[in-house]
Amino acid sequence: MVPTVGLRVPLVDLGDGTALLTDRYELTMLQAALRSGTAGRRAVFEVFARSLPAGRRYGVVAGTGRLLDALDAFRFDPDELEYLSANGIVDEQTARWLEKYRFTGNVWGYAEGDCYFPDSPILVVEGTFGEAVLLETLALSILNHDCAIASAASRMVRAAQGRPIIEMGSRRTHERAAVAAARAAHIAGFATTSNLAAGRRYGVPTAGTSAHAFTLLHDSERHAFEAQLASLGESTTLLVDTYDVERAVRTAVELAGPSLGAVRIDSGDLGVVARRVRDQLDSLGARDTRIVVTGDLDEYGIAALAAAPVDGYGVGTSLVTGSGAPTASLVYKLVARADGPDDDAPMRPVAKRSTGKPSRGGRKTAVRRVDGHGTAYAETVATGEVGAGPRDRVLQVPLVRDGEVVGREPLGAARERHARAVAELPPTATQLSKGEPAVPTEFVDGGPRH
Amino acid sequence: MVPTVGLRVPLVDLGDGTALLTDRYELTMLQAALRSGTAGRRAVFEVFARSLPAGRRYGVVAGTGRLLDALDAFRFDPDELEYLSANGIVDEQTARWLEKYRFTGNVWGYAEGDCYFPDSPILVVEGTFGEAVLLETLALSILNHDCAIASAASRMVRAAQGRPIIEMGSRRTHERAAVAAARAAHIAGFATTSNLAAGRRYGVPTAGTSAHAFTLLHDSERHAFEAQLASLGESTTLLVDTYDVERAVRTAVELAGPSLGAVRIDSGDLGVVARRVRDQLDSLGARDTRIVVTGDLDEYGIAALAAAPVDGYGVGTSLVTGSGAPTASLVYKLVARADGPDDDAPMRPVAKRSTGKPSRGGRKTAVRRVDGHGTAYAETVATGEVGAGPRDRVLQVPLVRDGEVVGREPLGAARERHARAVAELPPTATQLSKGEPAVPTEFVDGGPRH
Repeated sequence: MVPTVGLRVPLVDLGDGTALLTDRYELTMLQAALRSGTAGRRAVFEVFARSLPAGRRYGVVAGTGRLLDALDAFRFDPDELEYLSANGIVDEQTARWLEKYRFTGNVWGYAEGDCYFPDSPILVVEGTFGEAVLLETLALSILNHDCAIASAASRMVRAAQGRPIIEMGSRRTHERAAVAAARAAHIAGFATTSNLAAGRRYGVPTAGTSAHAFTLLHDSERHAFEAQLASLGESTTLLVDTYDVERAVRTAVELAGPSLGAVRIDSGDLGVVARRVRDQLDSLGARDTRIVVTGDLDEYGIAALAAAPVDGYGVGTSLVTGSGAPTASLVYKLVARADGPDDDAPMRPVAKRSTGKPSRGGRKTAVRRVDGHGTAYAETVATGEVGAGPRDRVLQVPLVRDGEVVGREPLGAARERHARAVAELPPTATQLSKGEPAVPTEFVDGGPRH
Repeated sequence: MVPTVGLRVPLVDLGDGTALLTDRYELTMLQAALRSGTAGRRAVFEVFARSLPAGRRYGVVAGTGRLLDALDAFRFDPDELEYLSANGIVDEQTARWLEKYRFTGNVWGYAEGDCYFPDSPILVVEGTFGEAVLLETLALSILNHDCAIASAASRMVRAAQGRPIIEMGSRRTHERAAVAAARAAHIAGFATTSNLAAGRRYGVPTAGTSAHAFTLLHDSERHAFEAQLASLGESTTLLVDTYDVERAVRTAVELAGPSLGAVRIDSGDLGVVARRVRDQLDSLGARDTRIVVTGDLDEYGIAALAAAPVDGYGVGTSLVTGSGAPTASLVYKLVARADGPDDDAPMRPVAKRSTGKPSRGGRKTAVRRVDGHGTAYAETVATGEVGAGPRDRVLQVPLVRDGEVVGREPLGAARERHARAVAELPPTATQLSKGEPAVPTEFVDGGPRH
C-alpha cells in the first residue's frame, strides 16, 4: 500500500451553508409532493422526546440560538443545486423550487435553557409541508446534540454545588461539535471552556494553562514551572502530577510563593490526593492556592468529591458524550396538515398508528404548573390553547415569525433562564439517582386557539 | 421571560478555518515555551489508545483524510489573532509567532481504514514543540470522532454479512459531525448515506425516499404511494408501516406491480414483520421486491436478523453514537524531545510517571505480524526501527513531509483497505461478544532508525 503522493481531492467548501446538512429523503418527499400537489398544504411539525434518557429527571433545551442562525443560512446555492441535479437527487421542477427557497413560516419553541420533560413540544414549525419538511434533519441534529450535552452538563453543575467547572472535552468529540458542546455546557452553568472557537464565536469565557507535555519538554519540572510562571504569572494553575505530586507542590510554592493561583491534579484517587495536597499547601502557607481536579470526571465523580478540599473541576469526555446519553432522542413529527391547498383549508390532526412509537396528533401548547411555593408540579401539554394560572409559565415563545427570526437573545439570557428553571423544579430533580421525571407530563384537550 | 425581538448577535463566520478548534492551553504552553526558549526543541508526539472500548476486538483508523484537510487550513487569520490578543490569551510575541504559523514538520500514521489495537501508534507528529503541540486538540477531535464511528460501523457491516447498510443517523448527532460520520461509515463498509453534504463533499452515495410524514400529508396511504411512484418510479422504496402493514403492502404491489423496488419497515418486531411481508410479497408475485428494515438497529439487532428475509438495513442512532463508545479515547502524548534547541541535539524519550495512566517514551514504529495463511497474529510496537518479515505489514505511512501533505488518497482506497485489513484478522475479530483484542500488542526495543 502506497498512498498516492500529492493527490489533490477537489475541495468543496461547505462554508456556513446549511441546506445540505439534510437527509436526502426530505428532498425526495418535497419532489413527490410538488408533483402530487400537496407540497403547498399547510403543515405543523413538532419536536419532542418520547422519553428522557433512562432515569434522568429533566432535559435541558439548548441549541435554539444555533438553530436560528442555521435557519438563516438555509439556502441552496447554485453549486449545491448543480450537485443535486447532476446526481439525479431532484428533478428540474424541484431544483427551481429550491433555488427560491426561504422558510416563510412560523416557529415557536421552549426558550433556550428551559427544562423539558417527556412529550414537551419544545419546537413547533408551521408552514407549507414543503418548506417545513426540509428543516427536519437540521433542526433535529442541532437540538439532539445540544440538548444532550446541556442535559448532562446541568447534572454536573448541580453535583458541583457551586464550585466552578471547566469544559475541556473538545478533543473527545467532533471538532465542530466541540464548539457547540462548549456553548451548551455554558448555558447549563459551566464556568469556562478550553475551546477557543467557542470563546470567539459565542463569548464563552476560556481557560487553560498547561499539560504534562509542557513539563516533559523541559529539563526538569522546576524549569517548566519557572517557565510557566514567567509567562502566565503567579495566578496560574500548575499541573503537579507529572512525576511526584508532593515534590511538585513543594517546588510550585517555592517558586510562586503563597499567591500561587492553583494546582491541578489529573490522576490518582482525586479525593485522597486533594486532601494531601490541601494539607501540604496549607502547611506551606499557600492557604489561598486553589485545587483543581480533572481526569475522567462525570456527575457521579464530582458528587463523590463534595467533601474533598477541591475548588474546581475540569470535565471532558463525559460532558461531550452526554454522560451516557449522547443524543436526546428528539423526533420531528407531522402533527397536523391542511385538508387541501388553500390557506383557509381546515387543519386535520395526524399521527401514525404503527406499533411501539405512538404519537399524538394536533398542534400542542404547553404550560408548566407552578404552586404557591414557586415549585413546578406538572407539565401540561394541550392540543389547542390551554389556560394558565397566574403562577404558571406558558412555555412556548415565538422564534420565527413569517420567516423572520425574532427569537435571538444573548447567550447569557439562556444561562440565567436555566438556573431559574432548575431552581423551580422540585428537589427530586437534582438527585443523581435514576428515577422518574421531576414533574409528570399530563395531556389535556385545550380550547380553540385564538 | 420575553426574548429580545430581532436582536442581532454579531455573526462570526468560522468558515473553514481550523486554528481555533483548539484548547486554550496549547497556546499558553506555546507562549511559555517561546519565553523559556524551549518552543524550538524538536519533539515527537504520538496518538494512541491505551485500550479499546470494553470488549471490542479491534479499532478502525478513520479521519486521516479530514485531518490532512484541516491541517492545510490551520492558520491564524488576523481576526482570530485579534481575538486572542484582545482577550489576553496570548502576548505580542506569541501573536507574531502565530501569524506566521504553518506546520513544517512530518506526520506518519496508520493508513486510513486500517485496523488498530491498544497502544498502536496510529499517528506520529514530528516537529518543533511549538508547532506540534498546537495540533493536539484538532488531531484528537477528528480522530477520536471518526475512529469511534468507523469502529462501530465495521462491526455492523460484519453483522450484516454482505447485506447493504444505509447510514441515516444525521439527525441524532451534531450537524457537522453527521457529515464526518457518514464518511467514516462508508470507509467501514456502509453502502450509502442519507446525508447530502457527505454525498457532495466526499462522494459517498446517498439514499432516501420518504418518511411517515409523507403518508400522513396525503388524504390516504394510496394517494401517498401513487405520488411517490409517480415521482420516483417503481424502483423506489415504499414505507409500509404508517397504518396497517398488510394493507400497505397490498396497496403498494397493486400500484407498482411486481417490479416495486423495495418496502421499508420501521417498527414492530422487525424479524417477524419481515417474514410476514416477504410471504405476502411472494404471494403477490413481487418476488424481487426487497425488504429494508430500520428502527433502532445496532450490530446486535442486525445480527439477530441474519435469518430473517431482510435485504438491507438502515442504521442511525447507534452508528453516530459509536454504539456505546462515542469516542475512541485516543490521546496525543509527547514521547520524545530534543535536549536543546539545535537541530542535531540528541532526542530523549519522555513519559510521565503519574498513577494509572502510564505511557512509554520514545518514537514508535509498528508492524502487523502475518502468518503463512495470511492471518495477523500480533501487533508489534517498537521503539526505534523493527524488522518486518516478508508477510508482515509495516503500518505507518508518510502523511506530511516537511509540512507538505503527501498522504491524500481517494476515499475508496480507505474503504478497500479496511475490507482487506479486517479479512486479515483472525476469526475472533468479527465476534460481537465481548473479549480480548483480536491480536495482542507486543512491545519490543527495535534497532536504531535509519
